Amino acid sequence: MSKLRVNAFTLSLDGYGAGPDQKLETPLGVGGENLHKWMIGTRTFRQMVIGKDGGTTDTDDSFAVRSFENVGAWILGRNMFGPIRGEWPDDNWKGWWGDNPPYHVPVFVLTHHKRAPIVMEGGTTFYFVTDGIHSALERAKAAAGGKDVRVGGGVSTIRQYLQEKLIDEMHLAISPVLLGSGEHLFAGLDMLKLGYRCTSQVATADATHVMIGRA
Amino acid sequence: MSKLRVNAFTLSLDGYGAGPDQKLETPLGVGGENLHKWMIGTRTFRQMVIGKDGGTTDTDDSFAVRSFENVGAWILGRNMFGPIRGEWPDDNWKGWWGDNPPYHVPVFVLTHHKRAPIVMEGGTTFYFVTDGIHSALERAKAAAGGKDVRVGGGVSTIRQYLQEKLIDEMHLAISPVLLGSGEHLFAGLDMLKLGYRCTSQVATADATHVMIGRA
Repeated sequence: MSKLRVNAFTLSLDGYGAGPDQKLETPLGVGGENLHKWMIGTRTFRQMVIGKDGGTTDTDDSFAVRSFENVGAWILGRNMFGPIRGEWPDDNWKGWWGDNPPYHVPVFVLTHHKRAPIVMEGGTTFYFVTDGIHSALERAKAAAGGKDVRVGGGVSTIRQYLQEKLIDEMHLAISPVLLGSGEHLFAGLDMLKLGYRCTSQVATADATHVMIGRA
Repeated sequence: MSKLRVNAFTLSLDGYGAGPDQKLETPLGVGGENLHKWMIGTRTFRQMVIGKDGGTTDTDDSFAVRSFENVGAWILGRNMFGPIRGEWPDDNWKGWWGDNPPYHVPVFVLTHHKRAPIVMEGGTTFYFVTDGIHSALERAKAAAGGKDVRVGGGVSTIRQYLQEKLIDEMHLAISPVLLGSGEHLFAGLDMLKLGYRCTSQVATADATHVMIGRA
């Protein structure tokens, strides 16, 4: 059965999914790159995202591998696709990833800015959804052809789907980093009342990986 | 040099130091006991807190051991000493721990309720401080005789000392548990701007132990 998943979403110790001041030069917010140390060294990240050989093949990599498995479509919040301030909305902006983004499936971007789909190299097509998270989910499930739909983030997008109890499974990586401010994943969101539980944890030198599911 | 420390303070994945609805029957809040699984099995906890033999002597225990080392005085928030609702303020209430509490040194309780000190068995004396966190710290440092002062909690007490940049070192244990609501340690507290950094992490099956210090 097709699931709505979050994978490899990384939080700081103080609960932030991105640092403050996200913009073109610092898409992860100030200090945000420290968050992703566990991921950046893995073979999967190097191969899938930056197109290089090498990298680790340990526990961190196994979570990275799983994050790309059986994904038929993605949903991204507006800030995951483009900078909060700066080039986007602008029809020349085609995402952070260059001509061949690491998705290779349809990607549904939540936005208030209507725009025609963009067909990229390697199988990725960006669709812009202006009528809300439920519509994006319906379209993504239809496009996924029975595979799972992965919510890539950011924090506010994940929060909206959690609030509606629509996320089936969530893998979070908690990094040993303080960010101080930014977008908080859990503040004000009662995960227990929403029916979520932590089902497992395993830690590495650079992150604690936790799985959260519906009770 | 005498430090102001937090040790073995345990947070849920969603950032809470205690569950909701703290009261006499559930001093850690609903679900709060799941938080402390890493600690409850250790030899140190069994020996120091419940007076029993046995227990684990692994990484979790080494953090428990260190939490009691070189502590010359404690500071506790009011809720750490007594239930929010219920028996206290009431001069028959002498804390959660029975006649011989696991402190064995002077303990300064922050409260708005004036009360004479209580001398307990085993070296613990409870002093009630009604003129604020700075006064409590001064008195605790004087009482500690050159040893460290440990802030036992709860969340709001730790937050107040962090906000004043007075905590030198903090050991947090993050448990693979969601609490959903309660007191949040980090929300609205910019740890980076306050000068704090995560200096190390090590994980066990039941918790991720992180050390936070001043940069």
